[in-house]
Amino acid sequence: MTDVRPPPLPDGQWSRQDAVVDAHRLDRSGWQPEGRPLGVAFAHSADDVRAVLRHASRYGIPVTVRGAGTGLAGGAAAPDGALILDLHRMNHIRELSRTDQVAVVEPGVITDDLDRAARAVGLTYAPDPASSAISTIGGNIATNAGGLRCAKYGVTRESVLGLEVVLADGEIIRTGQRSVKGVAGYDLTSLFVGSEGTLGVVVGATLRLRPAPVGTVTLAAFFDSFGTAVDAVTGIAAAGIVVAMAELLDGPTVRAVDAATGGNLALRGETLLLVQTDGPGAGREGDAAEEILRGSARDVQRSADERTTRQLLAARRAALPSLERLGRVLIEDIAVPRSQLARAAARVAEIGADTGVQIFTIAHAADGNLHPIIVVGRPDVDGPGSGSAAIPAAAWYAAERIFRTALELGGTVTGEHGIGVLKRQWLGTELGETNLHLQRRLRRVFDPAGILAPGHGP
Amino acid sequence: MTDVRPPPLPDGQWSRQDAVVDAHRLDRSGWQPEGRPLGVAFAHSADDVRAVLRHASRYGIPVTVRGAGTGLAGGAAAPDGALILDLHRMNHIRELSRTDQVAVVEPGVITDDLDRAARAVGLTYAPDPASSAISTIGGNIATNAGGLRCAKYGVTRESVLGLEVVLADGEIIRTGQRSVKGVAGYDLTSLFVGSEGTLGVVVGATLRLRPAPVGTVTLAAFFDSFGTAVDAVTGIAAAGIVVAMAELLDGPTVRAVDAATGGNLALRGETLLLVQTDGPGAGREGDAAEEILRGSARDVQRSADERTTRQLLAARRAALPSLERLGRVLIEDIAVPRSQLARAAARVAEIGADTGVQIFTIAHAADGNLHPIIVVGRPDVDGPGSGSAAIPAAAWYAAERIFRTALELGGTVTGEHGIGVLKRQWLGTELGETNLHLQRRLRRVFDPAGILAPGHGP
Repeated sequence: MTDVRPPPLPDGQWSRQDAVVDAHRLDRSGWQPEGRPLGVAFAHSADDVRAVLRHASRYGIPVTVRGAGTGLAGGAAAPDGALILDLHRMNHIRELSRTDQVAVVEPGVITDDLDRAARAVGLTYAPDPASSAISTIGGNIATNAGGLRCAKYGVTRESVLGLEVVLADGEIIRTGQRSVKGVAGYDLTSLFVGSEGTLGVVVGATLRLRPAPVGTVTLAAFFDSFGTAVDAVTGIAAAGIVVAMAELLDGPTVRAVDAATGGNLALRGETLLLVQTDGPGAGREGDAAEEILRGSARDVQRSADERTTRQLLAARRAALPSLERLGRVLIEDIAVPRSQLARAAARVAEIGADTGVQIFTIAHAADGNLHPIIVVGRPDVDGPGSGSAAIPAAAWYAAERIFRTALELGGTVTGEHGIGVLKRQWLGTELGETNLHLQRRLRRVFDPAGILAPGHGP
Repeated sequence: MTDVRPPPLPDGQWSRQDAVVDAHRLDRSGWQPEGRPLGVAFAHSADDVRAVLRHASRYGIPVTVRGAGTGLAGGAAAPDGALILDLHRMNHIRELSRTDQVAVVEPGVITDDLDRAARAVGLTYAPDPASSAISTIGGNIATNAGGLRCAKYGVTRESVLGLEVVLADGEIIRTGQRSVKGVAGYDLTSLFVGSEGTLGVVVGATLRLRPAPVGTVTLAAFFDSFGTAVDAVTGIAAAGIVVAMAELLDGPTVRAVDAATGGNLALRGETLLLVQTDGPGAGREGDAAEEILRGSARDVQRSADERTTRQLLAARRAALPSLERLGRVLIEDIAVPRSQLARAAARVAEIGADTGVQIFTIAHAADGNLHPIIVVGRPDVDGPGSGSAAIPAAAWYAAERIFRTALELGGTVTGEHGIGVLKRQWLGTELGETNLHLQRRLRRVFDPAGILAPGHGP
């Protein structure tokens, strides 16, 4: 371990203690870098972030930025010698304007906390990654997080109007604006969104809020096959209905939920589709969607009240915990054009059969985003999160075939989780060499010394 | 005039004739650069574009890219010695997928033509710049064009999923994807959108289509003052209603429309507000909006049929032609937070009174985008479009005060038209020096030889 000066921070905001470092060195990807990070800097303000980055630039120290550590691609897994810059204490909602329908927040604000504050004045923060109860806005911005409602409300990028960003050398810039429109200069806001900590550190964000949706209608439909369910989603879109949510659980997932909860959903069908409409047309859209679903589903249940809705959505919420009982889960994240969704799911099932690897598929059907979930080992034997070394070769091979499938079907190897470390080798394949090299040159403009997000990004 | 080799294009795709050059050297900004462009290259394909840019790179020839030349910021006004690269013949809709709700198009496609093709299968291309009948998708992308429906459907960027771009050196890259989600690498798509021809030449675009909205309700409300009308728009938003359109015409504009059309709208109120709701909740939202409008308006008219709707919207359509009868129009384009809209309009009126310059204001109220329209000279005396030299100093001074107002109120000097040449001196003021220099370095990554969009951009 090299002997380095501590970053110039107030007392108590820098630690090299093993317990502190260990508590801040990983994310939820399961990725465990070799070696040992340098220490953890806790920023309380943009000035703290500037001080840390100036220090890191000066001494050439690699920096891994961290919010809540809920990322699934290894973006916050700190490698050997890295300074961990933790932003979770920068968690103030600086402003929430009803008239402008914007919030100005620090990066450590928990996504659901912002949404709750917005709802108190009749608004909502629309992006809803599954981790919203625990993930931070800064992390959502770093990964351009998606969620369940993106087909209607867009991904995180569509809700970010402007940013305050500290660059690698400690300089600070503002991007974007507070209005919906604004075209002065390049759209650096969108460039920072999804850049996974490689271009700068977001220390403030101006976010778009929307009116809180009213009159939700939820439909749970059971189908004989995944393909029939996808056809129903296509039919709903073709009827001009923009659903707020269209979640698909394949047969293996439904059965795993049954096994975990003691339920018998699988008796009602091989695939479960949960559709939600919202807004002033929710009732009418719900009626039209229900009619389409009844055309091919074995069973359709409808709810417009909160309690029944919660019951209908329970299976979706139970899916991941149910799979985690079976072993260690690797959540893949591909997106394909909607027309290729059924084919992608069928290929994933084939890959599971071919490789002997257990794969369960959940999909955000309306935007073509599939999460094939690979389950390996057994938690009672291997322990949970037992490190990348514990993942059998067959699982890696299955994952690679899943990525290849996504690209063959005109899709992407990551719809909403990010490239991180885990998919880095696929970036060039998806983007092409010219694009990849352009991205590398672009990165160097922002971070000439290469201190940000070591080992990640293009 | 320098003697240069012609770009390697098939016969008939390169011209240096005066008549051809003159027909392609300007846009609708009124900006007239000194000197004479080199000639016009007509590209029919991406390969033609690559050949031209390779040639231009090799010989260091500046390139001005052009679609339909409808830009309002001087982006397609070609300076001395520039090669004009005209893309209007690349006007094929390559694909239109109902299931994926995407279109793949060439840059020269006219915006309305795409929308018409989409509507034939129940879809729509949502961005609707006022120039949509004559402007091209490529130009819309270059400027990140806005329009009337942006508060609900977003600006051009929100409808661009992916691009094919020829870089300055002739290399071609693809960005983005065909699905709504996708986070592999930096968001170069958004970086190219709005980059005004400075980073590369878009030769193909994958665009998001949406279900064509049904059941439009249109409301025309007359108010005693601009401020009261803005308050009504704020009230509608506060009630959770997302309008498809909220167009404001101030008193001077209403009177100009009356004078041009022989109407008497001004008798009904000092400010006209046109509100439209659409989609499955249009009726319910229209009811709620109408009730709010009736609370403070002098007069409210409602329509749900096409003929009456057209009548109600006629005043908006007539506004610009009515002003053009009064003299040469300079359409300014600022955007401010919604809460500052009334203040911005009041300041613009003050600026007009102070400087003695005639200023008329139209606003896309739901997204805070104002178009103060400066009218100078008289077309019967000065002739229309009589060159920047003919604009009196008082008009420039008024424009500068308008820009300053936008920035003072937390807004931007350009909401949707672009920086172009005309607002270039304001870019640093709005962005700050650090951001501006970052953008300059970034530009050099894409175009090291500096051949694209000479004299424009950061």
